[in-house]
Amino acid sequence: MAAQVQASEIRKDPVLERWVIIAPHRGRRLKFVQEEPQAGPATCPFCPGNEGMTPPEIMAYREPGTKPNTAGWRLRVVHNKFPALQIEGDLDRTPEGMYDLMNGIGAHEVIIESPNHDPSVEAITVERMDDTLRAYRDRVLDLERDRRMRCVLVFKNHGARAGASLLHPHSQLIATPIVPKRVAEELEGAERHYRFKERCVFCDVLREELRTRERMVAENDLAVGFAPYAARFPFEACVMPKQHRAAFERIEDHEIRGVAEVLLEVLRRMSKSLDSPPYNYMLHSAPYGSSDVPHYHWHFEIVPRITEVQGFEWGTGFFINPTSPEEAARYMREVAI
Amino acid sequence: MAAQVQASEIRKDPVLERWVIIAPHRGRRLKFVQEEPQAGPATCPFCPGNEGMTPPEIMAYREPGTKPNTAGWRLRVVHNKFPALQIEGDLDRTPEGMYDLMNGIGAHEVIIESPNHDPSVEAITVERMDDTLRAYRDRVLDLERDRRMRCVLVFKNHGARAGASLLHPHSQLIATPIVPKRVAEELEGAERHYRFKERCVFCDVLREELRTRERMVAENDLAVGFAPYAARFPFEACVMPKQHRAAFERIEDHEIRGVAEVLLEVLRRMSKSLDSPPYNYMLHSAPYGSSDVPHYHWHFEIVPRITEVQGFEWGTGFFINPTSPEEAARYMREVAI
Repeated sequence: MAAQVQASEIRKDPVLERWVIIAPHRGRRLKFVQEEPQAGPATCPFCPGNEGMTPPEIMAYREPGTKPNTAGWRLRVVHNKFPALQIEGDLDRTPEGMYDLMNGIGAHEVIIESPNHDPSVEAITVERMDDTLRAYRDRVLDLERDRRMRCVLVFKNHGARAGASLLHPHSQLIATPIVPKRVAEELEGAERHYRFKERCVFCDVLREELRTRERMVAENDLAVGFAPYAARFPFEACVMPKQHRAAFERIEDHEIRGVAEVLLEVLRRMSKSLDSPPYNYMLHSAPYGSSDVPHYHWHFEIVPRITEVQGFEWGTGFFINPTSPEEAARYMREVAI
Repeated sequence: MAAQVQASEIRKDPVLERWVIIAPHRGRRLKFVQEEPQAGPATCPFCPGNEGMTPPEIMAYREPGTKPNTAGWRLRVVHNKFPALQIEGDLDRTPEGMYDLMNGIGAHEVIIESPNHDPSVEAITVERMDDTLRAYRDRVLDLERDRRMRCVLVFKNHGARAGASLLHPHSQLIATPIVPKRVAEELEGAERHYRFKERCVFCDVLREELRTRERMVAENDLAVGFAPYAARFPFEACVMPKQHRAAFERIEDHEIRGVAEVLLEVLRRMSKSLDSPPYNYMLHSAPYGSSDVPHYHWHFEIVPRITEVQGFEWGTGFFINPTSPEEAARYMREVAI
């Protein structure tokens, strides 16, 4: 507790419009994670009964009558114990020589998806997936009240190779005072398409995928899961709601279940096809202030981590994918789950 | 030989200006690599005496009087046996439904840097590094004559986690009929700075790094190696020539040695600091047709692969770096090599 913690900084690349969080206090954690074995249910900070091992909860879905920070919850949200950004303080932009710097203001939260320690995709029920999506929405809506925040990034790392340091099923969110490069690029690209055609590019993609069905993986009345046409990675997938909406947090109650079903089916088909690979998923949603634009459409990007990214791909943003999305989608459609 | 090979395609993401190579025939190779043990010198296709195991050489630096595709070489360049792009055919851009497609035209070559099988950084001599840089230049100049090519990407994958499938020291180049996203972004960002200040942003960075020296790792009369201010990864480094020049292939003979010395010193200091990590390096250079622009400045990006990239970083292009570049640079400067 008394250890000196060096605050995070947000630095801007002078050439690319790319921000980087320099978070030196997370270094110790990386080392820690490599050295310690994975915690079992007895010592797992995310298991029921161990609520005292995490920072106090921000929100929970729990049985009536149970108290915060005790057992009885279905889902719990807590601050990350090793946050990349800190919620305290004023936002301060300064020059540093020729460079641009911002102090590391933001939020970094952990969504503990279930009391069940089992990390496998097979252990995820539709009810749990529904709770998880609902928690994402509730947190994004709550953080919108903090005027310093521009954007919330919701993501899940599953397995050590995908960056997870704990087995117990969880996702994370990071609220940032800037709009990250990739988010800005997606918005710009979508706006370009809209100016040209007066249609949402994602709605166009949806229509095209429903027309050809070549890359389709899962579908119900409210959502689709498919392999993107220009997939960067083998078995990459995208889950998109059929209803046009720029911001995820505008989702309606009855839609959450539909999206939960499709997202879960895609995860199960991917997991079965690739023998339970590590994976990441990431919510792409319009930043605060653009929640109702006509050109953007929220969606999930799902990437199993089965190939290494090479120097070529790092350096260029130009990817080589050895599996065609049509082949991956056919495999996922046909696998028995 | 008679196996049916599915041709590569270059596909464009409909939202982002991002191209992806779909190269299904490389899939088999990925599987192959995982199953086979690493070849020793006797069975290594890149070792002297085994020249018949590679496609015929495109170029070599060899002892006078020795024949192509036999021993006696210091450095050899061959076509990649499993190319991501093929040199044969006409460039053809077509729509595919709502999407954009190009056939997989390009070149994919392997630079075998030395007859010595030892993959360690410690085995690299300045003479060998000099030969390697010279080969990069010679190949980029030669490929410029092919009018279909817009850009050559030169990179090195060292170690399996960095994407290398063979131990024997080698780098690769891919010549492409498009300008990859990241290359275009760097040029645009640099042009923006130039329009604003009428100075090259990389020359400004160079001046700043030489002024503060906080992030400096190695320096001689002709080049500098430093940790970038907004480094995405721990111990990331950049090697840049002091002489402003947009395209690497315009380098002069006497400069090659200076850059080779600094690049090698940075690799050695990085390798010693991190106990011989897997790493990638990547040459960033202006595309054909922009070789003499005032706003761009070629450089090498060097990234040791010691942390996993998380879902957050994939999805946003917003990186969390747990080691400050100042700390990494100090460590690299002070380590004994």
